[in-house]
Amino acid sequence: MITGKNYIGNNLSAKGIKTYTTFNPQLNKENEFNFVEATTEEIDQAVHLATNAYEQFSELSGIRKAEFLNAIADEILALDALLITTYCSESGLPEGRAKGERGRTIGQLRSFAEMVKEGSWVEASLDTAIPDRTPIPKADLRKMLIPLGPVVVFGASNFPLAYSTAGGDTAAAFAAGCPVIVKSHPMHAGTGELVALAIIKAAVKTKMPNGVFSNLNSSGHEVGVALVKHAGVKAVGFTGSIDGGRALFDLASQREEPIPVFAEMGSINPVVILPKAVEKRGESLANTYASSITLGSGQFCTNPGLLLGIKGEALTVFIKHLSDAIVKIEPSCMLHPNIIGAYESNKQKAVSQSGLQVMADYDSDIKSNYARQTITTVEGKTFLENPTLHQEVFGPYSIVVQCEDKDQLERIITHLEGQLTGTIIAEESELNEHKEIVSALLGRVGRLIYNGVPTGVEVCPSMHHGGPYPASTDSRFTAVGIHSVKRWVRPISYQDWPDSQLPDALKNSNPLGISRLVNGKMTSSKI
Amino acid sequence: MITGKNYIGNNLSAKGIKTYTTFNPQLNKENEFNFVEATTEEIDQAVHLATNAYEQFSELSGIRKAEFLNAIADEILALDALLITTYCSESGLPEGRAKGERGRTIGQLRSFAEMVKEGSWVEASLDTAIPDRTPIPKADLRKMLIPLGPVVVFGASNFPLAYSTAGGDTAAAFAAGCPVIVKSHPMHAGTGELVALAIIKAAVKTKMPNGVFSNLNSSGHEVGVALVKHAGVKAVGFTGSIDGGRALFDLASQREEPIPVFAEMGSINPVVILPKAVEKRGESLANTYASSITLGSGQFCTNPGLLLGIKGEALTVFIKHLSDAIVKIEPSCMLHPNIIGAYESNKQKAVSQSGLQVMADYDSDIKSNYARQTITTVEGKTFLENPTLHQEVFGPYSIVVQCEDKDQLERIITHLEGQLTGTIIAEESELNEHKEIVSALLGRVGRLIYNGVPTGVEVCPSMHHGGPYPASTDSRFTAVGIHSVKRWVRPISYQDWPDSQLPDALKNSNPLGISRLVNGKMTSSKI
Repeated sequence: MITGKNYIGNNLSAKGIKTYTTFNPQLNKENEFNFVEATTEEIDQAVHLATNAYEQFSELSGIRKAEFLNAIADEILALDALLITTYCSESGLPEGRAKGERGRTIGQLRSFAEMVKEGSWVEASLDTAIPDRTPIPKADLRKMLIPLGPVVVFGASNFPLAYSTAGGDTAAAFAAGCPVIVKSHPMHAGTGELVALAIIKAAVKTKMPNGVFSNLNSSGHEVGVALVKHAGVKAVGFTGSIDGGRALFDLASQREEPIPVFAEMGSINPVVILPKAVEKRGESLANTYASSITLGSGQFCTNPGLLLGIKGEALTVFIKHLSDAIVKIEPSCMLHPNIIGAYESNKQKAVSQSGLQVMADYDSDIKSNYARQTITTVEGKTFLENPTLHQEVFGPYSIVVQCEDKDQLERIITHLEGQLTGTIIAEESELNEHKEIVSALLGRVGRLIYNGVPTGVEVCPSMHHGGPYPASTDSRFTAVGIHSVKRWVRPISYQDWPDSQLPDALKNSNPLGISRLVNGKMTSSKI
Repeated sequence: MITGKNYIGNNLSAKGIKTYTTFNPQLNKENEFNFVEATTEEIDQAVHLATNAYEQFSELSGIRKAEFLNAIADEILALDALLITTYCSESGLPEGRAKGERGRTIGQLRSFAEMVKEGSWVEASLDTAIPDRTPIPKADLRKMLIPLGPVVVFGASNFPLAYSTAGGDTAAAFAAGCPVIVKSHPMHAGTGELVALAIIKAAVKTKMPNGVFSNLNSSGHEVGVALVKHAGVKAVGFTGSIDGGRALFDLASQREEPIPVFAEMGSINPVVILPKAVEKRGESLANTYASSITLGSGQFCTNPGLLLGIKGEALTVFIKHLSDAIVKIEPSCMLHPNIIGAYESNKQKAVSQSGLQVMADYDSDIKSNYARQTITTVEGKTFLENPTLHQEVFGPYSIVVQCEDKDQLERIITHLEGQLTGTIIAEESELNEHKEIVSALLGRVGRLIYNGVPTGVEVCPSMHHGGPYPASTDSRFTAVGIHSVKRWVRPISYQDWPDSQLPDALKNSNPLGISRLVNGKMTSSKI
């Protein structure tokens, strides 16, 4: 079923000569299929088809887009065991994770389907005319959100399903009415092709215009660069490293017509452990965090890579418990030899910094591509002075910083780069005593967690997944949840437009029955 | 009352040695006051104060922010005749315009005050916990909008009040909870200082933190560049030329931490005149457009600089009427010798293009700094092939393009750069016959107008003022109306946060009584 070809709209295409394979990290060998990298001509064709498809797709009703989104979910489920085994063979992740991630992907698609079927997401706003207003009459103005145009989505290495081919970025873009061109992630090109096939089948079944979706293979940077620079592309979604995301952001900003890039990038997800909490619940916290740090081999963007506490016996005991607990956890396989290679070298760079102490390092025999979990510790002053220690070590690694006092802790937080999440572990009474710390953390993060772990990103409207740079390139948007659709839309106003010619969302009779802001009041009524 | 000094927070400061004056274009001579350009040290102080002020200001209640915004409006009104005469002396604009623009500025401030007092603008979203969900419990998540941090606002030459010191950008930033540093526009530095004084008085009266506002004088690029590059600045608002806006966007994008720049830039605001309409109402249309093109000496960002019609007798007659009507209008004064200089040279560049025909050019004697209104015409093919003709000529100038047919008209629209507005002049029956044209225009603009003129930007929620690049740097945001606050805010999620520690907007009891999305449904009820 896997052909190794690109989908240029509904058609398979393999005009290129450059090929590559994916890798099975569990078996430590290459997978069988050869993937043919997309050529410049194929890239042009995909963008051309997407541009044409946009005209029709952008004007489709919510009901029609919901049919498409639900059909994608159905087709993904129909791939059944083939998808799961391919996913596992290309990621080293276990079957349970594959199924869980498939469930999340399906859930995302269906929640966007619900959103567009209901229809109020277009934020319709109507201000009716006041012809007799003095000194000048007031025109009739009506505003709603419309799609930006073709969107390019870069698949994520660590989420072959939920943040790749038919993942959150793609689902949100389709919901918006934007055609999507996926730059397939080379580590899971087979999984990507299967999901692409599901999307194409769904598009054909639900009669979407050809070009609403394309899937381009690519092992290096060329295809992605060409897509982001292409004049027909109007926005970009990316999940991955800071270097990768920033490079795309720079390319997009330097275009003759700059386009928005929403890149969700690195994060060390600081966890602040306040004194009373660590004293009272040090051991259970240690167990909880040993699990969170090693979850999915530490390959989550919300992995807690930095624990901040105030020096003292309770913290010392906590570090001991954490170190003891973490080495008891069975190591797990990382996504790819390149990922484990980067983990080892980034960890090496961190532990070679002066003042850093290794508290735990899994030291039994281990299979190829399996990661040794590691806990280090350092004094607050040393951490504050050495920016290398602030960098993400993607994998099951965490550093515990022992601060002198509250002030140093606050100073460290204000010196951190932007983060996806920040966590406070505290007794409730401690929050009032540490208001400055909470407020400093709020300024650096996109999500504040109380007495929990940052791993586990709930998909719901109130989730914000993003944060000040470099957690994301634009902190004003989320990558998760239905509000992520706002990345791919812009408002348009109609002035004095004849009712019969207005989009349904703006007509007097409110034929969609959606919630609208009418002369400043929210209502579902007609005018 | 005008000192020529900068406001660094609440204090006047003039440490620099570089000074400049403003110019009275009506009298064709310099005004009396010397303005002292801000120094690097003063810029640092202003940003430092703003950063400190942010901590307190960002957490103020809507009621307190509304007091501040309303007090600014009151203080501006209290400036009374001094403000109006200063405005006129620095802009060459008539008293009526000054008063009208003051009214608009006051209206904007008060509408943002209403918005924050009511409070629902923070888009509170609550998803309550499901502790017994399987396989894993659902956490409690609550999301709302919070301010980005200090915002730099660049005053606009053509709106000394409504889009400068206390204009739309500043009012929206204050409403969001962001301190503001204004880079005062050198052409109206006196008007700027008076309004800055009003803001400072209001800030002191309503007990805002020192640094919530600063006003920096500047005659060149240095102050603006230093501000946009300053690590403490978190967002930028700009209204002006494409070159200026793009330069700031590039600086901001190239920072170590890129920040959003919302620049509202040039636009030629295409007007499509369909055949039946021009046949039926050519003469009245000509009169309407002669007025719109010359309104405020053509110095509006929504000035109709491009009229597109289909070749034929009716269009020829329309051009004749328009040309006859426009030269009968008394010329008016432009803002500054530099502005009229640019107008004359840009117009010269346009009319020297091959194939362009000048149909009207005011040729009687004229005062210094007064602009001669001009109408030109060109064939569709020539226009399509010469991008110079697509460039804005800021002033009372418009080009009428005579297209061969519908297809050429559509092709021209798709080849236009992004625009703030697009207008269709048509009989209602013609809209159905020209769906492709309407759809093409929709793709290039931020506001679609039917049978009206683009000048006159209503301030209301349904107004979108912005558009695809280069109309603005980010088409997803508006520069006008209460939704413009979204440029200066980002969402934050609280996970499992204790109710007593949540911001009021997210508390169970909904003490603000605002409209919130609770478990997917909009409601003002408590939980």
